Amino acid sequence: MFEFEVIKKDKDTGARRGRIITDHGAIETPIFMPVGTQATVKSMDQDDLKEMGAQIILGNSYHLYLRPGMDIMEQAGGLHKFMNWDRPILTDSGGFQVFSLADLREITEEGVAFRSHLDGSKHFMTPEKSMEIQNIIGSDIMMAFDECAPADADYNYAKKSMEMTSRWAERSLKAHKNPEHQNLFGIVQGGMFKDLRAQSAKDLVSMDFPGYAIGGLSVGESKDTMFDILGHTTQYLPENKPRYLMGVGSIDALIEGVFRGVDMFDCVLQTRIARNGTALTSQGKKVIRNAQYANDFTPLDEECDCPVCRNYTKAYIRHLIKSNEILGARLLTYHNLYFTLNLMNRVRNAIENGTLFELREEVFSKYGIPIKEKKWNQY
Amino acid sequence: MFEFEVIKKDKDTGARRGRIITDHGAIETPIFMPVGTQATVKSMDQDDLKEMGAQIILGNSYHLYLRPGMDIMEQAGGLHKFMNWDRPILTDSGGFQVFSLADLREITEEGVAFRSHLDGSKHFMTPEKSMEIQNIIGSDIMMAFDECAPADADYNYAKKSMEMTSRWAERSLKAHKNPEHQNLFGIVQGGMFKDLRAQSAKDLVSMDFPGYAIGGLSVGESKDTMFDILGHTTQYLPENKPRYLMGVGSIDALIEGVFRGVDMFDCVLQTRIARNGTALTSQGKKVIRNAQYANDFTPLDEECDCPVCRNYTKAYIRHLIKSNEILGARLLTYHNLYFTLNLMNRVRNAIENGTLFELREEVFSKYGIPIKEKKWNQY
Repeated sequence: MFEFEVIKKDKDTGARRGRIITDHGAIETPIFMPVGTQATVKSMDQDDLKEMGAQIILGNSYHLYLRPGMDIMEQAGGLHKFMNWDRPILTDSGGFQVFSLADLREITEEGVAFRSHLDGSKHFMTPEKSMEIQNIIGSDIMMAFDECAPADADYNYAKKSMEMTSRWAERSLKAHKNPEHQNLFGIVQGGMFKDLRAQSAKDLVSMDFPGYAIGGLSVGESKDTMFDILGHTTQYLPENKPRYLMGVGSIDALIEGVFRGVDMFDCVLQTRIARNGTALTSQGKKVIRNAQYANDFTPLDEECDCPVCRNYTKAYIRHLIKSNEILGARLLTYHNLYFTLNLMNRVRNAIENGTLFELREEVFSKYGIPIKEKKWNQY
Repeated sequence: MFEFEVIKKDKDTGARRGRIITDHGAIETPIFMPVGTQATVKSMDQDDLKEMGAQIILGNSYHLYLRPGMDIMEQAGGLHKFMNWDRPILTDSGGFQVFSLADLREITEEGVAFRSHLDGSKHFMTPEKSMEIQNIIGSDIMMAFDECAPADADYNYAKKSMEMTSRWAERSLKAHKNPEHQNLFGIVQGGMFKDLRAQSAKDLVSMDFPGYAIGGLSVGESKDTMFDILGHTTQYLPENKPRYLMGVGSIDALIEGVFRGVDMFDCVLQTRIARNGTALTSQGKKVIRNAQYANDFTPLDEECDCPVCRNYTKAYIRHLIKSNEILGARLLTYHNLYFTLNLMNRVRNAIENGTLFELREEVFSKYGIPIKEKKWNQY
């Protein structure tokens, strides 16, 4: 099943407070989705994720297709059972990862030939293959197979790529075998060109997907360009369908994305910087690895009530990170995800209470992010 | 404080069911102590350790001395506060680690000059220095500074080394500043020579330590030799003091050690093989990394009620291990420690119920370990 309801629209911005309902439960939006590339959100267990309030997590089709492979996934009864996660799961199409292989792949109208980054074995990914994989995985939200053009793609490349993405979206829709229980989103492409973004959105909307993703952003362009293209794109998407900004989740992008009507976000930033020793806190980013925290016996974030902040000090976590101890990565990962999920909780409350501008000002000032537009520019 | 009570002596073997009481609580013996070398039991958090029933953990003085260093340890108020662990802690003297540095150290009567394995910096460890470090760490049970001779040490080397260990034990006792709250154990050495072991034990017993460790075993000798020397040694140790077999914790050694009157064990085996993908189970050792478990959707151990066995399958854990995911190491570590702590729980019950022979037979048969002596040979 799939339902989406806009509970409240912000009067000053494009923000919406919504709720998605899937076979595996409800998702309050706007939402941040932790990334579990290889059937695990790195260093977390599934009880950790529930405890911190993760409502939905991501899996990556490309990685799961290569390992453990679809035979085992099918025998397991899908990803929910395989990893013991009974809340919603979203999968990408595998496209982005395949395109990221650069030298290892070749794109044609039919699909993408690529070599595994694990063992060099040859594979061929198509819209039909991607749907087959995602049907086996059994994700609640699936993605159409798209081409993600690089940020520096010229108009001609971006146009051809976008048009092929529309044709692949049609093929994806047709190949999807389980629309009763799994919900396929189309992906808007079109590079940094507004007319192409508009055309892509129109193409996809005409196919009537249950939701729409915005791909091909945060691929090397400036933040200003990203927010501009994003705000331009969402206006072409229907009000009554959820919108997912793919692979974007920095603190400013989460809030600016919500301003522009985005309902769903995912990003590896939170977990990646954690493993490198950096914490997201209510006072801004803190590089816990730095010497200044060696004898700081206070929590990562005085305002945080997560178990990491209740139990451990910066000095201890710094020691663990410096000693390459797994627990250091784990504690910072937990905290960073908790912080981000909690931020989205505050965003949802701010939409309900009409205080989104105040929240943006508070958060951006702590993170040293300039606010360029005091008021929201309607696109 | 320190109290030790033998609650029940086994009538057929040297086994004892006991209880140690420290400032940070009671320890039911015989006990297995998880090793937290760098102020963390690798991949576990302190709540995990409590949940699985760890009563006491180890810290390594050498590692903690180098990192985070004693300045920070002192400012933190000791290791309990630094890592947020309020149950008992035992520390080694740093001696074993320093001797393991091989080329990087030089031993004299005064102490051991060594270079840090981290940055090559020069240090000098003595009984006095070791006590100073352990006093700052604030461990409930401390170890005297000893020399651990290699298994192939000749009689002459082993004798001189053992005699120096006795002199170092005297110096340790004298330098220990906090005997009200921290309890110093002497360490019996003497290589593989029974008369030297006897002499070492007598030397140390005359100094009246609150407990005695047996060092220099499992350093390359055969299991038969180890058990023979162990059984010979414990007879020289007083009944009313706890006995700790250092660095030994394979399944057979835990049980054979208990037979020979050992009360405390520690070992990195459980956590190390976990990170390499091997589980200890009631059916014996299972190399979960192996292909045979790729589509095995049953728990690591059908008879285990730990959260890992309640929530995850072998197929999932194998996938995590093959993918080098932190969660794989973490789940196997939790299970292996839980299994071992639970085994010791069964050992304690077996002593109380007089069923130790039956327990040994059951466990050894599952692990394919031959039982050489059907009856216990009193030493």
